[in-house]
Amino acid sequence: MASRAESPATLARIAAEAGVSLPTVSKVVNGRSDVSPATRKRVQELLDRYEYLPVRQRSRRHDALTADLVFTHLDSPWAVEIMRGVMESGLDVVVSTMKDPGGTPWSDRVARAGRGGAILVTSHLTAHDRKILARAHLPLVQIDPVDLPSPDMPSVGATNWAGGLSATRHLISLGHRRIGMVGGPEDFLCSRARIDGYRAALDGAEIPHDPTLVRHGDFHHEGGYQQALELLEREDRPTAIFAGSDEQAMGAIEAARTLGLSVPGDVSIVGFDDLPVARWASPPLTTVRQPLSDMGREAGRMLAQLIREESLDNHRVELATSLVVRSSTAAPRA
Amino acid sequence: MASRAESPATLARIAAEAGVSLPTVSKVVNGRSDVSPATRKRVQELLDRYEYLPVRQRSRRHDALTADLVFTHLDSPWAVEIMRGVMESGLDVVVSTMKDPGGTPWSDRVARAGRGGAILVTSHLTAHDRKILARAHLPLVQIDPVDLPSPDMPSVGATNWAGGLSATRHLISLGHRRIGMVGGPEDFLCSRARIDGYRAALDGAEIPHDPTLVRHGDFHHEGGYQQALELLEREDRPTAIFAGSDEQAMGAIEAARTLGLSVPGDVSIVGFDDLPVARWASPPLTTVRQPLSDMGREAGRMLAQLIREESLDNHRVELATSLVVRSSTAAPRA
Repeated sequence: MASRAESPATLARIAAEAGVSLPTVSKVVNGRSDVSPATRKRVQELLDRYEYLPVRQRSRRHDALTADLVFTHLDSPWAVEIMRGVMESGLDVVVSTMKDPGGTPWSDRVARAGRGGAILVTSHLTAHDRKILARAHLPLVQIDPVDLPSPDMPSVGATNWAGGLSATRHLISLGHRRIGMVGGPEDFLCSRARIDGYRAALDGAEIPHDPTLVRHGDFHHEGGYQQALELLEREDRPTAIFAGSDEQAMGAIEAARTLGLSVPGDVSIVGFDDLPVARWASPPLTTVRQPLSDMGREAGRMLAQLIREESLDNHRVELATSLVVRSSTAAPRA
Repeated sequence: MASRAESPATLARIAAEAGVSLPTVSKVVNGRSDVSPATRKRVQELLDRYEYLPVRQRSRRHDALTADLVFTHLDSPWAVEIMRGVMESGLDVVVSTMKDPGGTPWSDRVARAGRGGAILVTSHLTAHDRKILARAHLPLVQIDPVDLPSPDMPSVGATNWAGGLSATRHLISLGHRRIGMVGGPEDFLCSRARIDGYRAALDGAEIPHDPTLVRHGDFHHEGGYQQALELLEREDRPTAIFAGSDEQAMGAIEAARTLGLSVPGDVSIVGFDDLPVARWASPPLTTVRQPLSDMGREAGRMLAQLIREESLDNHRVELATSLVVRSSTAAPRA
């Protein structure tokens, strides 16, 4: 597309000031030899004074590879963390979501854009998407895929099972025995892995499961609030809740406040993700840190390798989670 | 960069299967006429079976304009809201920050990238930045500039003064007379406008100013926490705080909790921005809504006009803020 300096107006102005024709100015710009040295000098001085940059220099593209980064939604601080990591991998990142305002399926848009490749975040791929993307022979990497990714689709995730285990072990070590769990949507593999980690920790401590203490939210605030409210309204309410995501944990804190229960005095709450908002919660959240930036950076690195047609060491990388203890957990009241 | 389908391997495989030479396959791909109809048919069937897409079709770029969207930092949910709006304007958006990991000044990087234009968010432009960007003749729009933008730099902001006024009037209408204010950094114009709105509301209600009740944070959680802590530790503590940003308001809620004060029972708190986290706070925040997505969309629309060399109706657009009343404000205790 035309940049302003290409507009005839600028060159015409220089031509007028130099007292030469527009084609003569063009000749100087394009380095042609059929211009007298005196004219060339006069025109060049004006080009310099107006800081005119030749088109070939202006349009020289940055060396970095450009890739699409496609989110299912762009509705959470979660996205910023991933994005920052992908950017740090050195790729130029075109950010978009799977909701195309124009009504074109996102996969058609990405396939047509003709960029180096794409990183897809927490994405359900339809048969149409798979077909279009395969046909475009576009290098792809998934972050935290909802389903088990097909073996030919490289992906990056976090150790969700180990994270669920350590969150629950932390609560057990404080003395909790009656621990509620609010997972994400039932069909999300990452949520299933966190719940399985929770169950493994209970088994390890020989605490019997109460299946009525395990509930499913939507990973968002509203789901955490509703599910925690129902758990905390019970006569035999749990003394602690592992809330499955930071947003859900903040919903659980609000559910406790609504019922007049204090956190962590009456109920301990653990999140998952360690978004910046985990520090802003009141009280600040004990949570399981997902290295979201690192996941983004790793996905970017893998995609760059694919674009350069290098082979990958691993098609599936899981980065370690870690427990961050803040103020939303304590021993249960005696 | 090379997409996989261009690799000689694919075409060689098709040539082998069709029993013809590689140049013959190329002729079919390129629509040349010097191939027998039978050979053309056989090769075309194989190209279809392998879903081979001609290069000219693959590299056809999406119609949308591509622009850089440059944030000072990418450390807040605030950024996602702006980003979503810019994307909705129909621009393809390359997101980056002013901190370049490679050490190249961001303005050089953006100038060299040769994209359609750039949107700069809350940016301090150095003399170097201004020079480089001017020389590149790159269409630019600023969102929420820190300084008063120069008249030739189009910008989009929100009605910060009116927002400060309505937040403070809301507290006055509840019966508060002793109202603290935590602004952002002193050199941020948007913060100054919010504080001026606060003062105008006090004047309107004939409440004398107490300059010791006005403090400056960093717009982030830590600043809000510290400043609110100092206000609330005083003997003559305010009964309400207008916290200048949602993050600062969440810091103020935590400061109150630390001191054993309830919100809104002992102190009312009002934020500014209405980020998604405002709903997740406990209690959910009364706040001044900045239409961040709309601001992003408007900036995108203006930039697209500049790229198409259309003239702008306005060089400075301020979109309206509005008060959102939730649960962090109430009448002061009698």
